[in-house]
Amino acid sequence: MSAEPGPQIRRLRESITRLHRELTRYRLVAWTAGNVSARVPGHDLMVIKPSGVDYDDLAPENMVVCDLDGLVVEGDLAPSSDTAAHAYVYRAMPEVGGVVHTHSTYATAWAACGEPIPCHLTAQADEFGGEIPVGPFALIGGDDIGKGIVETLAGHRSPAVLMRNHGVFTIGRDARAAVKAAVMCEDIARTAHLARTLGTPLPIAAADVDALYDRYQNIYGQRPPLPRSP
Amino acid sequence: MSAEPGPQIRRLRESITRLHRELTRYRLVAWTAGNVSARVPGHDLMVIKPSGVDYDDLAPENMVVCDLDGLVVEGDLAPSSDTAAHAYVYRAMPEVGGVVHTHSTYATAWAACGEPIPCHLTAQADEFGGEIPVGPFALIGGDDIGKGIVETLAGHRSPAVLMRNHGVFTIGRDARAAVKAAVMCEDIARTAHLARTLGTPLPIAAADVDALYDRYQNIYGQRPPLPRSP
Amino acid sequence: MSAEPGPQIRRLRESITRLHRELTRYRLVAWTAGNVSARVPGHDLMVIKPSGVDYDDLAPENMVVCDLDGLVVEGDLAPSSDTAAHAYVYRAMPEVGGVVHTHSTYATAWAACGEPIPCHLTAQADEFGGEIPVGPFALIGGDDIGKGIVETLAGHRSPAVLMRNHGVFTIGRDARAAVKAAVMCEDIARTAHLARTLGTPLPIAAADVDALYDRYQNIYGQRPPLPRSP
Amino acid sequence: MSAEPGPQIRRLRESITRLHRELTRYRLVAWTAGNVSARVPGHDLMVIKPSGVDYDDLAPENMVVCDLDGLVVEGDLAPSSDTAAHAYVYRAMPEVGGVVHTHSTYATAWAACGEPIPCHLTAQADEFGGEIPVGPFALIGGDDIGKGIVETLAGHRSPAVLMRNHGVFTIGRDARAAVKAAVMCEDIARTAHLARTLGTPLPIAAADVDALYDRYQNIYGQRPPLPRSP
Repeated sequence: MSAEPGPQIRRLRESITRLHRELTRYRLVAWTAGNVSARVPGHDLMVIKPSGVDYDDLAPENMVVCDLDGLVVEGDLAPSSDTAAHAYVYRAMPEVGGVVHTHSTYATAWAACGEPIPCHLTAQADEFGGEIPVGPFALIGGDDIGKGIVETLAGHRSPAVLMRNHGVFTIGRDARAAVKAAVMCEDIARTAHLARTLGTPLPIAAADVDALYDRYQNIYGQRPPLPRSP
Repeated sequence: MSAEPGPQIRRLRESITRLHRELTRYRLVAWTAGNVSARVPGHDLMVIKPSGVDYDDLAPENMVVCDLDGLVVEGDLAPSSDTAAHAYVYRAMPEVGGVVHTHSTYATAWAACGEPIPCHLTAQADEFGGEIPVGPFALIGGDDIGKGIVETLAGHRSPAVLMRNHGVFTIGRDARAAVKAAVMCEDIARTAHLARTLGTPLPIAAADVDALYDRYQNIYGQRPPLPRSP
Repeated sequence: MSAEPGPQIRRLRESITRLHRELTRYRLVAWTAGNVSARVPGHDLMVIKPSGVDYDDLAPENMVVCDLDGLVVEGDLAPSSDTAAHAYVYRAMPEVGGVVHTHSTYATAWAACGEPIPCHLTAQADEFGGEIPVGPFALIGGDDIGKGIVETLAGHRSPAVLMRNHGVFTIGRDARAAVKAAVMCEDIARTAHLARTLGTPLPIAAADVDALYDRYQNIYGQRPPLPRSP
Repeated sequence: MSAEPGPQIRRLRESITRLHRELTRYRLVAWTAGNVSARVPGHDLMVIKPSGVDYDDLAPENMVVCDLDGLVVEGDLAPSSDTAAHAYVYRAMPEVGGVVHTHSTYATAWAACGEPIPCHLTAQADEFGGEIPVGPFALIGGDDIGKGIVETLAGHRSPAVLMRNHGVFTIGRDARAAVKAAVMCEDIARTAHLARTLGTPLPIAAADVDALYDRYQNIYGQRPPLPRSP
């Protein structure tokens, strides 16, 4: 275990609050139906949105700290009803530092049809390394959703999974990366839907998808990365 | 009858004003074409939007108080032209504390086709308990719209009804719940439309719909609920 | 002729500036591609947007006053390139006090197909009294567009016309009514498009369309109407 | 070579920062995925967005100055990963003063299908002089994208090219004109998509397209043009 997690948790409460604003800015969520969490690095803890609270009312002090079984450690409110799924992912995938869940409409339309999003866009090759996969139908309330996420993402480069008849879960090395994946997933789901209803989207050769993915993961952005709040 | 309704009405004027902002925020309304009302608990009264007033100009003091026959009790402006429909619902459904009406575009497209929205999404099972039903075509100006709403919702768990060739009415235990149902109805109508134009949406088993509905109605959110303005 | 038009023009410069904000609020326009004008009541004059000026930069003092041949009477900037069409409408239709032109996307999609929007919605019956008609293809630069608008609207209750391969023109007793018609036209064009791509929109009986139109034109809103800036 | 470029660069840093706000205002970009650049007139230099920086965090001082081989001349951050493509265009097309790249969704859907946007709209004839062409599939990392842009636009009046499976590049006499072309390209791609999914878009005669293009390029807007920041 690392040093006392207090200062880290304080910073994560702030950054998770800010990151929820990206969900509303990009219109990925309606009412209170999406959530962001972050692992507390070096501790078996996570910071997550409280359940059923308006996005306008989110503040660092009403975020909830849970252990990785989803039990509340710090906070007066009940955590997101999706806490068990977030916790399962953190337990199973130690490299994951952030998890996001939305019902963003275009991605959820693909999920409702149980169809993975085929890779017709260079931006999709960059971020997702190929198709965005579909996970199983799973009921809320136990580990089924978490298991479905982990089993689906295990075999893919994609940080996003379309859970059948449900919505999107994304992962990242931190919460910001998971939010980025959620934003890009909806953008790509929308473009792919528009392309499908327009005509016949053209494939990208597998070798080109690989080249794009490798380059983007290793070259894009600032080196070293810009300093960010954790 | 309860005590004098003055303080309750003052609070409801404020909350109804605020809730109309959710209609514009989620782009459920164009120009002046949607409205929210609330029952005054314990009194045969309702608070409702004035007719044809811009959303930007709504304020607690220009809301209209009517009795449950739709007659103005307090207020200088004429009430919403949909007042008769709201009043009919309050008379017929004593458990209803709030009513919302919109022409939100995706839901209204389903209404224009006279098709209920089948349940392909867990979020729909949660909030609506199954398909979102279609009510009859009815002309404004008497009790026909109110009757159509009540007769349709009587047989459903759904708090939303798609009135044929017209738009959406939603109900709730209070006005906030009815506004939430209006927001979720459009979100689901949109996702269902996108899924239909994409491919073949997959059904959810009836037992799973029931399980999701029961859980969401009884567990989601904060226990006890967060304090809210009435 | 009435008294000196100075004070009227000052008020119209302000109200036209404000009304352009509704075009951007409802996303009816991209870049500088839409415009609002108002007749100066009792004078053969109109106030109109300058050509190619950003919506953010519009202000009462850069609006342009033209006569009804489209010649500039007051103002340093060139008027909208659609001025000839606005002027033609004011010359031919003395009851018209405001004209709006947009390329709002859903309505323009119907215009690109040369299809009138059939009446499947009570809100369309209310505001447009039936289908929204299509006008001819016409080149800019003379009276062809104005003639096309007037000849098409002459035979309809609709205050909106879809000019083929071009966009929308709407009219009203004042500029505010014409802006309302432009907002509602796009809202209805969108809903009608979504209904068409969803399934089979159901017709409304002609007698019901008439009843809805008569009621809305005569009863909706405040009696007497709310005071507004002219 | 002209006089020292310092004051020009300072003004361009400001105007490029402002112009990126149009990309977010019109929702042409998600996360950090689009960019604007400007040539420094009279110098073999360009000002461009830094790579992977949030639009909210863009400021004149973090823009990057590169030479026309894409090498950084001034600035602490790495330039956009699309810098090589911008630089290629400036080298090959001396009349171009600004370049914009987006993945705006409707235009990118046409690009995913490899279909040029046929000219069904007068606004498209005005700005693009006919269809909006498709360029080749090209991998990032060398001159392939730049070459594809230049070779495609060489044979067209259009200032926009849809790069296959990728997105949009637009050019202009300055950065503002290129941003306008990016905004109009998406607006037209959207309307054309909606027309295609609605019915059968009607063609415009080639002579009419020519007449519209000539007029718009020579008459529209203010004469002389409004003063703008460079």
